[in-house]
Amino acid sequence: MKPSWACAAAIALVYTTGAHGSDTWILRTDLWGNPAFSTLKLDQTGAALSGMLDGDKVEGQAKGPDVTFTSVDTAGNAVHFRGKMAAGRMTGEGDYPDTNNRQARASHRFTAWRLPDRPTGPPRIHDFVPTDYSNSWNADRAPVLTVWPGDSVRTRTIDSGGVDEKGVTRALFGNPQVGPFFVAGAEPGDTLVIHVRKLALNRDYADSLDMIVGRAVGTSLAGRVADLGKPVRWTLDRVRGLARPEHADGALKDFTVPVRPMLGGLGVAPGFGSPAISTGDTGAFGGNMDFPDIAAGNIVYLRVQQPGALLYLGDAHALQGDGETSQYALETSMNVEFSVDLIKGKAISTPRVESPTEIMTLGQAGSLDEALRAATTGMLGWLMQDYGMTLSQAAQVLGVAVKYDIPNLAGRSVGVAARMDKALLPPRITRPGL
Amino acid sequence: MKPSWACAAAIALVYTTGAHGSDTWILRTDLWGNPAFSTLKLDQTGAALSGMLDGDKVEGQAKGPDVTFTSVDTAGNAVHFRGKMAAGRMTGEGDYPDTNNRQARASHRFTAWRLPDRPTGPPRIHDFVPTDYSNSWNADRAPVLTVWPGDSVRTRTIDSGGVDEKGVTRALFGNPQVGPFFVAGAEPGDTLVIHVRKLALNRDYADSLDMIVGRAVGTSLAGRVADLGKPVRWTLDRVRGLARPEHADGALKDFTVPVRPMLGGLGVAPGFGSPAISTGDTGAFGGNMDFPDIAAGNIVYLRVQQPGALLYLGDAHALQGDGETSQYALETSMNVEFSVDLIKGKAISTPRVESPTEIMTLGQAGSLDEALRAATTGMLGWLMQDYGMTLSQAAQVLGVAVKYDIPNLAGRSVGVAARMDKALLPPRITRPGL
Amino acid sequence: MKPSWACAAAIALVYTTGAHGSDTWILRTDLWGNPAFSTLKLDQTGAALSGMLDGDKVEGQAKGPDVTFTSVDTAGNAVHFRGKMAAGRMTGEGDYPDTNNRQARASHRFTAWRLPDRPTGPPRIHDFVPTDYSNSWNADRAPVLTVWPGDSVRTRTIDSGGVDEKGVTRALFGNPQVGPFFVAGAEPGDTLVIHVRKLALNRDYADSLDMIVGRAVGTSLAGRVADLGKPVRWTLDRVRGLARPEHADGALKDFTVPVRPMLGGLGVAPGFGSPAISTGDTGAFGGNMDFPDIAAGNIVYLRVQQPGALLYLGDAHALQGDGETSQYALETSMNVEFSVDLIKGKAISTPRVESPTEIMTLGQAGSLDEALRAATTGMLGWLMQDYGMTLSQAAQVLGVAVKYDIPNLAGRSVGVAARMDKALLPPRITRPGL
Amino acid sequence: MKPSWACAAAIALVYTTGAHGSDTWILRTDLWGNPAFSTLKLDQTGAALSGMLDGDKVEGQAKGPDVTFTSVDTAGNAVHFRGKMAAGRMTGEGDYPDTNNRQARASHRFTAWRLPDRPTGPPRIHDFVPTDYSNSWNADRAPVLTVWPGDSVRTRTIDSGGVDEKGVTRALFGNPQVGPFFVAGAEPGDTLVIHVRKLALNRDYADSLDMIVGRAVGTSLAGRVADLGKPVRWTLDRVRGLARPEHADGALKDFTVPVRPMLGGLGVAPGFGSPAISTGDTGAFGGNMDFPDIAAGNIVYLRVQQPGALLYLGDAHALQGDGETSQYALETSMNVEFSVDLIKGKAISTPRVESPTEIMTLGQAGSLDEALRAATTGMLGWLMQDYGMTLSQAAQVLGVAVKYDIPNLAGRSVGVAARMDKALLPPRITRPGL
Repeated sequence: MKPSWACAAAIALVYTTGAHGSDTWILRTDLWGNPAFSTLKLDQTGAALSGMLDGDKVEGQAKGPDVTFTSVDTAGNAVHFRGKMAAGRMTGEGDYPDTNNRQARASHRFTAWRLPDRPTGPPRIHDFVPTDYSNSWNADRAPVLTVWPGDSVRTRTIDSGGVDEKGVTRALFGNPQVGPFFVAGAEPGDTLVIHVRKLALNRDYADSLDMIVGRAVGTSLAGRVADLGKPVRWTLDRVRGLARPEHADGALKDFTVPVRPMLGGLGVAPGFGSPAISTGDTGAFGGNMDFPDIAAGNIVYLRVQQPGALLYLGDAHALQGDGETSQYALETSMNVEFSVDLIKGKAISTPRVESPTEIMTLGQAGSLDEALRAATTGMLGWLMQDYGMTLSQAAQVLGVAVKYDIPNLAGRSVGVAARMDKALLPPRITRPGL
Repeated sequence: MKPSWACAAAIALVYTTGAHGSDTWILRTDLWGNPAFSTLKLDQTGAALSGMLDGDKVEGQAKGPDVTFTSVDTAGNAVHFRGKMAAGRMTGEGDYPDTNNRQARASHRFTAWRLPDRPTGPPRIHDFVPTDYSNSWNADRAPVLTVWPGDSVRTRTIDSGGVDEKGVTRALFGNPQVGPFFVAGAEPGDTLVIHVRKLALNRDYADSLDMIVGRAVGTSLAGRVADLGKPVRWTLDRVRGLARPEHADGALKDFTVPVRPMLGGLGVAPGFGSPAISTGDTGAFGGNMDFPDIAAGNIVYLRVQQPGALLYLGDAHALQGDGETSQYALETSMNVEFSVDLIKGKAISTPRVESPTEIMTLGQAGSLDEALRAATTGMLGWLMQDYGMTLSQAAQVLGVAVKYDIPNLAGRSVGVAARMDKALLPPRITRPGL
Repeated sequence: MKPSWACAAAIALVYTTGAHGSDTWILRTDLWGNPAFSTLKLDQTGAALSGMLDGDKVEGQAKGPDVTFTSVDTAGNAVHFRGKMAAGRMTGEGDYPDTNNRQARASHRFTAWRLPDRPTGPPRIHDFVPTDYSNSWNADRAPVLTVWPGDSVRTRTIDSGGVDEKGVTRALFGNPQVGPFFVAGAEPGDTLVIHVRKLALNRDYADSLDMIVGRAVGTSLAGRVADLGKPVRWTLDRVRGLARPEHADGALKDFTVPVRPMLGGLGVAPGFGSPAISTGDTGAFGGNMDFPDIAAGNIVYLRVQQPGALLYLGDAHALQGDGETSQYALETSMNVEFSVDLIKGKAISTPRVESPTEIMTLGQAGSLDEALRAATTGMLGWLMQDYGMTLSQAAQVLGVAVKYDIPNLAGRSVGVAARMDKALLPPRITRPGL
Repeated sequence: MKPSWACAAAIALVYTTGAHGSDTWILRTDLWGNPAFSTLKLDQTGAALSGMLDGDKVEGQAKGPDVTFTSVDTAGNAVHFRGKMAAGRMTGEGDYPDTNNRQARASHRFTAWRLPDRPTGPPRIHDFVPTDYSNSWNADRAPVLTVWPGDSVRTRTIDSGGVDEKGVTRALFGNPQVGPFFVAGAEPGDTLVIHVRKLALNRDYADSLDMIVGRAVGTSLAGRVADLGKPVRWTLDRVRGLARPEHADGALKDFTVPVRPMLGGLGVAPGFGSPAISTGDTGAFGGNMDFPDIAAGNIVYLRVQQPGALLYLGDAHALQGDGETSQYALETSMNVEFSVDLIKGKAISTPRVESPTEIMTLGQAGSLDEALRAATTGMLGWLMQDYGMTLSQAAQVLGVAVKYDIPNLAGRSVGVAARMDKALLPPRITRPGL
């Protein structure tokens, strides 16, 4: 089992302590068993500490390893922290007011690790070979790597069943993910930008089913569909980029289809108050979106929910039809290259994807009707935020040019995408991909 | 008001009576105020009549203008008809058993008109200039023209507000339709094939709104969306095939978008037991499908519900985004050319559309979730019927290759289309477009 | 076939013409084949005519049987009418502006009948024995009876299959309705109040099925459910008010259940622009609501859509579970007594029902999710309109006291009811049942 | 933070080791970071071990503290365990085949604790005062108490905001739960029976909002509803059992409503492969069902997903309307008494609730339409399993007697309940509450 962050912030120990000046710390407070992560910026001048804790002003003092500081929020609530700091780590207790009962206060333990200084020089390319995987989108799992905006990562994913490029099971089934990658500087309220640079097949088969998900068929076929569900192995021709069912006959004996590699899973850690979420699930954090346009050359925008964003990826598909109607797409392992950027202070309501020719918003909900509302609302927001349209103008553009498709029917939430041709749109106010 | 069929089968009078041999009659029986249409095939040999009434065997006698005949259904129920026949018309009464009460019988009046013989020679092209329009999909409206499989029609439609190419209001708003066209030989259980040959803009403007339909937006924007809904006139550049909002400024001051003419309305008369249905509505008969792929070069397949199919068309759009989210697309008048064919004895569960590159099924229901079930079920049926796949094989093909989109959100029922690239499919067992 | 209103306003002839003073006329204009009904109030002083046409001011002249008058709407559009008046009837033409094209005008034929004066004396009880039935909610069917607010009607309905209390088929299957009843004084914008006084079984059996509607079962049972659907006849014990399946055995051999007679169908004619609507369908006009609380002792409120409201009723059930999951409830004929009232100038968004202990709103839509929105919105409206609550207060009351149930799953639209215990509510601002 | 089960099975140490004979162990295997719980039954005869591991046969040997044993599943896959056993604890490693790759095997660490022997004598009543709370339905949290079928527990819950009966915050907001209670003998495939014996208010106020959840209102009110959401404190009169808003005026100045205490949260741990699930969420395991009939005197049936079931409870409401439309019901702390039973080997598809007069099934899904399918399917299952009906008979009973209501609209999944009057049903084949 991957050690939880609480027990294993050892990763931070390798960074040298900032001799002076402004340091950034990632603070983990245990609120009755629930981790709360904050970004603490501390400036030390002599013994005096000052800074910010997630937007609240901080003042305090340091004496050798002993530190005390107090944050005050806009409502005047003060939290007093007292702890010990050494070698880029801090541990201690915070004394919190009980907002329901002014006579009561509560003490909560915290740990913190200091974010190392940003390396000088150009953005870096990290080669990362995972050794274990996460079966949840999880804010409390120790980061596997810290990267800065502009950096790239080359890594590889295993298939949704936990099987790697050699056919060996490396993790529990259920879309095990690589990560999390800690993106330095990311805070809730920001948007994380993921450039999907390369997705390359790295083995010669994919696994699927001959199934049709229950929500895709009417009652007239439901009885017969219940008999389906057997495994189908597909042969991948990596040279020509083709897939075919291994034992096809009859009408499918010559059936061959071009692959289109994609990441079924891409997500950041869910926000405060949420426990870890199954890697089979989705949300505003992204997740098991199963959106075929999360493909090489495209850009994905996700709303940051935790300090460092904590990016995970996995569940690659050699190919998937809309809706992933067979429950399993062509599940396979993959070599992946991506880079990250940050848009500070800009929050988005739904995941966004951008290709060279289109902008797309993804709505996810418990019904297609609700997912479509989310996708449309997201697209209207994008047109107003980045293209300077009024709501009336965005409505007119939608009316003649929006396209909808339905990427995902196979999860607890379904996905509807709204798409818009960039060639039709006015000049963009903001810088794409950043 | 267009005279109802009951009062005005005069259209049939121009055809010469078949001197002998097999005649086809369209029988309209009034069942307690509800019209029931049947196809009656009668052979006369001397005074003896024999034939079929919608699949039930018929025998009878003719004496001058007086005819009597009896049909017997597979359950042994006999209906006795007695009437007068002259100049291609017949009127009389049918004596029916009461299936709930063996002691009771009921008499129902009928009228009939004789279908003229099929003209010899090649298929014909009909130029048809409409003089009135229908605000309902209606089995009881007298046909405006009788055509045979293979025939083409050149006509023109007015816009959804009833306004023609000169800007004059010719009909009540609400998608008034041209028709119905009686397709000789069509019977319930057949499939009507409509080849959309040409759709040409014939005026320089279209009318729309700056609206967003309620089912497309989330609660966060619903309050602001309620303030939208004002008319927007669009200028159509027929030479270059472009549309732009007439008074656009700000972010839309240079907004121009290529038109893609389409028929919002295309439908046959609904089946027995249904009253006329608003031309704002849809069903298995087609109707106000608002499906952008009902465009020139494509083929539409509709399930025949009444003798002669009774095809209507109208509500053309210069352009429409998916979902017709603005409630009105770019509504305009249009020159239309189409031809018809019949697939005898083949019923389909949902409207089908075929382009040169794709096959598409349209599911229509009260929610996207149900519409998607219908679209998928329709596509599975098509793959099994026409491409020889088993359900398991069709499931595999869907899983890697189905595309979904959402043509229509603006009506009582919404529409979801399932699409499949024909290039991926095995050879077709049946003949496309026929 | 019931003659259409256009041909058969003879019903009005029996009323004596008002010698002078203010007369009310119901005007039917044929707009390109679509009937538009208006209320015309005319005062004659010498040759001078003045009055109102649906809220627009009217002025004109009468010379013997020739009348001319002009109405002007708030936008200044004038319509000129010219016709002949005799014996409580008027026919003629109206000359209308083309709102799309100021150069064009259009002529539309009209007919009208004069509403007789209100009888003096107390409200009356009408005994009405129907001779034919309507298979549509239809504004263009001639009224069977004119009643005034306060009047009562005693009549009888046949079952959904068209079978009467003697077991004889009197109409086409599909919920044939009695009516319409013209409620003098009712205009669009009013609310019609129907007091259901008595519902009495009048035969000893009901017909049903052993079915489960498709939208009620999950995929795990869908295959087996497809095999159901056989007719089940139920014995009705009218003395003890009990029902039991006629040939029950096994677990149901002693199954007996108390009846609760209800009207499945109760509706007014749909508004301008809508064609006749199938009696299997529902809408803001009521219709085939299949709501078990439309039972004796309760009050139903429907939004008036046409002059005279044009009330229909039928499709009585001896008993129905929520959702009418078996597609057919215990379908039977019934003796019915009801009275009507009017609330002038008060429009409601959804059908409302009131029992001695509860108020209920019925939302109807293509999905339960949308139907629930409508029901809740209707209940919030009721609490604000009639109980003087702010939206915040209504929200608090809902949060602790609303009950939802699901009366109807068997139609194209489904129904969700929101209910509220009257004992919890503050004093009512308005007078119940009026 | 509650120590995870992995670190803290110390709870088991207090039980004496069984000297001989059959012991039951709860085995926790770490599968790549994911806990898998199994029930291991071991008989020791001399050095020989034999038994069952979740239905698979086990054989092995013990030498002092060293144990080895092998389980073989029905497909012939063998897992070899090797560990050390002492004082009711066991730790070690299991050697597993790689089902994807016959050449590969994987080693996974396990820990186990021995279930103490069942106490002799009658069922016991446990008084349990919680000291911490869980914000997730969680299979990996150490049990707070082990109980046997028939035992009762008296405990108390805090409100959904984490506030106790004295007004002090004891846990993080978000429905913190008491538990889990380990029910000895429970295994996946069984049904856990919870008799809710008493629910008693233990403070004088409840907290709520004046909100309406987005999915309950139509677009016409959505704009105004967005302005709601302010806290409303309610006064609870414990003597008379009444609630009223603390600062009500206007139409609500005399508004008083009887309380009906209920448990909003009641759930078992989710099954293998699921991470911990937020206590705001629901599933087949129960959870935040917000079902007002989880009230004193009623019985709840939940499907066991993990050894020991691991029952949690919390989020009590003094009162809740259907749907919990205000997002917060009347949230308060509560004294709770319940007892547990087990139905071995009987799995149920949805949560079931039984009152003295009704049986009820709860469907939970992302839309009301899907939730209703689940509820109906569950009710059909109950009628067939426990009342001996065929599907056709169950359909007939549903058609006349099912009631639906909508307990929950405030979560990610919504809830629909199907209800049936027990007085109508035939004699029960099985024993209620057991």
